[in-house]
Amino acid sequence: MFEDIKERVYRANMALAENKLITLTWGNVSEIDREKGIVCIKPSGVSYETMKAEDMVVIDLEGNKVDGDLNPSSDTPTHLELYRRFEKIGGIAHTHSRWATIFAQAHRSIPVLGTTHADAFYGAVPCTEEMTEEEIFTEYEKNTGVVIAREFTDETVMQIPGVLVHSHGPFTWGKNASESVQNSIILEEVAMMAWHTMTMSPDAVCSQYLLDKHYLRKHGKGAYYGQKKGEEK
Amino acid sequence: MFEDIKERVYRANMALAENKLITLTWGNVSEIDREKGIVCIKPSGVSYETMKAEDMVVIDLEGNKVDGDLNPSSDTPTHLELYRRFEKIGGIAHTHSRWATIFAQAHRSIPVLGTTHADAFYGAVPCTEEMTEEEIFTEYEKNTGVVIAREFTDETVMQIPGVLVHSHGPFTWGKNASESVQNSIILEEVAMMAWHTMTMSPDAVCSQYLLDKHYLRKHGKGAYYGQKKGEEK
Amino acid sequence: MFEDIKERVYRANMALAENKLITLTWGNVSEIDREKGIVCIKPSGVSYETMKAEDMVVIDLEGNKVDGDLNPSSDTPTHLELYRRFEKIGGIAHTHSRWATIFAQAHRSIPVLGTTHADAFYGAVPCTEEMTEEEIFTEYEKNTGVVIAREFTDETVMQIPGVLVHSHGPFTWGKNASESVQNSIILEEVAMMAWHTMTMSPDAVCSQYLLDKHYLRKHGKGAYYGQKKGEEK
Amino acid sequence: MFEDIKERVYRANMALAENKLITLTWGNVSEIDREKGIVCIKPSGVSYETMKAEDMVVIDLEGNKVDGDLNPSSDTPTHLELYRRFEKIGGIAHTHSRWATIFAQAHRSIPVLGTTHADAFYGAVPCTEEMTEEEIFTEYEKNTGVVIAREFTDETVMQIPGVLVHSHGPFTWGKNASESVQNSIILEEVAMMAWHTMTMSPDAVCSQYLLDKHYLRKHGKGAYYGQKKGEEK
Repeated sequence: MFEDIKERVYRANMALAENKLITLTWGNVSEIDREKGIVCIKPSGVSYETMKAEDMVVIDLEGNKVDGDLNPSSDTPTHLELYRRFEKIGGIAHTHSRWATIFAQAHRSIPVLGTTHADAFYGAVPCTEEMTEEEIFTEYEKNTGVVIAREFTDETVMQIPGVLVHSHGPFTWGKNASESVQNSIILEEVAMMAWHTMTMSPDAVCSQYLLDKHYLRKHGKGAYYGQKKGEEK
Repeated sequence: MFEDIKERVYRANMALAENKLITLTWGNVSEIDREKGIVCIKPSGVSYETMKAEDMVVIDLEGNKVDGDLNPSSDTPTHLELYRRFEKIGGIAHTHSRWATIFAQAHRSIPVLGTTHADAFYGAVPCTEEMTEEEIFTEYEKNTGVVIAREFTDETVMQIPGVLVHSHGPFTWGKNASESVQNSIILEEVAMMAWHTMTMSPDAVCSQYLLDKHYLRKHGKGAYYGQKKGEEK
Repeated sequence: MFEDIKERVYRANMALAENKLITLTWGNVSEIDREKGIVCIKPSGVSYETMKAEDMVVIDLEGNKVDGDLNPSSDTPTHLELYRRFEKIGGIAHTHSRWATIFAQAHRSIPVLGTTHADAFYGAVPCTEEMTEEEIFTEYEKNTGVVIAREFTDETVMQIPGVLVHSHGPFTWGKNASESVQNSIILEEVAMMAWHTMTMSPDAVCSQYLLDKHYLRKHGKGAYYGQKKGEEK
Repeated sequence: MFEDIKERVYRANMALAENKLITLTWGNVSEIDREKGIVCIKPSGVSYETMKAEDMVVIDLEGNKVDGDLNPSSDTPTHLELYRRFEKIGGIAHTHSRWATIFAQAHRSIPVLGTTHADAFYGAVPCTEEMTEEEIFTEYEKNTGVVIAREFTDETVMQIPGVLVHSHGPFTWGKNASESVQNSIILEEVAMMAWHTMTMSPDAVCSQYLLDKHYLRKHGKGAYYGQKKGEEK
């Protein structure tokens, strides 16, 4: 019944591993089907080497299991909170990728330092506030979503499709699982280059003009990057 | 007679190499069978490309050879000292992996800077004291175990399953050989990210709340990460 | 009709990916046939995994499509501007390779710090000036070529076959597409080593004597590196 | 006639590439047969992908070609100078490997910071003096050997089997070609870890006791690392 979404979510999870963003079992990707009211997500703590599409877990938006034999990722309540809060999010990825995690641990946002960043994120990728004792010990994973949501509005959430959770690591999203993974890949490149740029030239900035130009030529109304629909490969 | 433990120890040694924690022949993994009173360990200075399970060496807890044609790792007395001192240790891994070794050479412990660390190590991974002239020139490898042991109690040794030996490199452990290797993999990730976090934000810390939460959701009484026994893959 | 140049340009684009200078679809290589007055270039936003030689796009020097089904790279006007300005350039490569991009984002030229640099670049690899609001919002890609051209003369352009575009990333060139890719590979090595050299020893320099010697033994009149024509492999 | 030494030198050159110490064609390994008075070395500027054992070039100690169709490496006079000066050197390797080259460009020796270094190099790996205008423009490659030789005595040359040539890169050596490559691998690891150790803890040192212990347990009279002759694999 959920074969298509399970296959997509499985492939998106494997793409994280293929792009070397995963160590051991750290990481998870989900996708939402808003019409059916279900979310498909990676099971908790399962090895990427043996994982199969049928192992993906299907839950409703309150976290009740709808389909699947295994426990869903322990980060599931974070995904659900983001899906509930932001209608436009269609897929979410979470990793402990090295460079994005370094910024999260350093409690630093990733500023816009060049066009690589501007092509995908229309502004700094924010680091969340530190979670309080209460937020941590009561519904921790749900509250992780709550503190992420504080950094975004309905308008900005798809323009800056990623965040660094304080002392933890990155979450990224997109219109589906595949796009959320692509944003994880981009975020890791951007974070690695930002770290070294900031170490070499602490005052370096990218102009607002260049940010506008690059973001809008890919994502604005008159976007002209890539192939037109039907021509794409 | 010792085929099973030799196979496990062989695979654990190969896993170190597969995870790129090994250069040349540097590194070794062992496992103890406390019922039989024997330890199985990698032979000294043998290439990972030609090494076979049957090359693993079996010794007793005093270091006398019980089975095997080759010399055991020159670090064997360090492993034996740790097995004698700490009943709960079931497997030990030693590498010169880059980032953990950098902290050992810098004489710095690895502080808890995020949840990646907290998921596996319930506190800073300590760097040992510098060994004295006497400790070095009399039973050096055994004394390496002695200085490691000074950093732990029976209670903390399995909560913080790793150490940095001053000017040398990391040892990690676990309930068996495989788990000791997994902790080497985690330690290397944690060390790499800590180096860059500390360079960027020297004062960054992870709250005790978050450390407690992450360590305990994986290792505490009410742990809920992963699959329940029987469901695991 | 354009099979040969399409094959060469295709292979040059794939060589960028094989040398790990490409993330996702970021990057493009072109080659010019000055007799025919055409340029062959990678299509925009096409995956390296599915791209074929026949997907390469052929355009004239004003950017009109001559052959091919897909849209040319969005950076095509930059390539054309460089071909128009500098008669000796036969091939151009553009990437967002990590280390060269870090210097571009840091607004720093790459100084000559050793013979690895001197073997390929006869002087510092310059970082361009920041583009103005007008240059960005009117013919941005063409103006990227204009700001690059400001850093070179007809004499120096083939002696220093690369540049860092401010807040963006590197372009390299050569007598054909293949050589432009080779210079991208070298630039990335040189940039990585320069970053760490400058961090460790901010005042380090390479003598003009050594720069002259290394550049000229490979590229000068009495060059004696490699095999003589006919002996080469 | 020289098939054996050509095969060994070919394999040693390929081992440099397999260990990722080579970019493009940068690097060369040679071996000497002192009885026959000949040296076998890699040809100049030939791709590692197409190179074959029969392409290796055989020369005498004055550099006259004895066997082979191609030109020997342009660095051949450096190798010959070292073979003439130091009777114990049996093989030499030269690379532009990233981390060793960074120290060469930074004009810094690599201090002994831990046992990884001490296991192979019995003291700091020196950086040579800067070459003078005259040394560069008259017999440059031979003089590179001369400035290297200034850093060593007959006694120390095999205890510290490597050097960093100022603003250039590393040379390593050993009793044959294979061992010289192994020392290149070790030097690169040691350099990478030293860079980060020195950045984190500029005053870190490894005790002379530990250096003595580690070097001598592998290379001293009572060495006990590895297998005894006949047991080795």
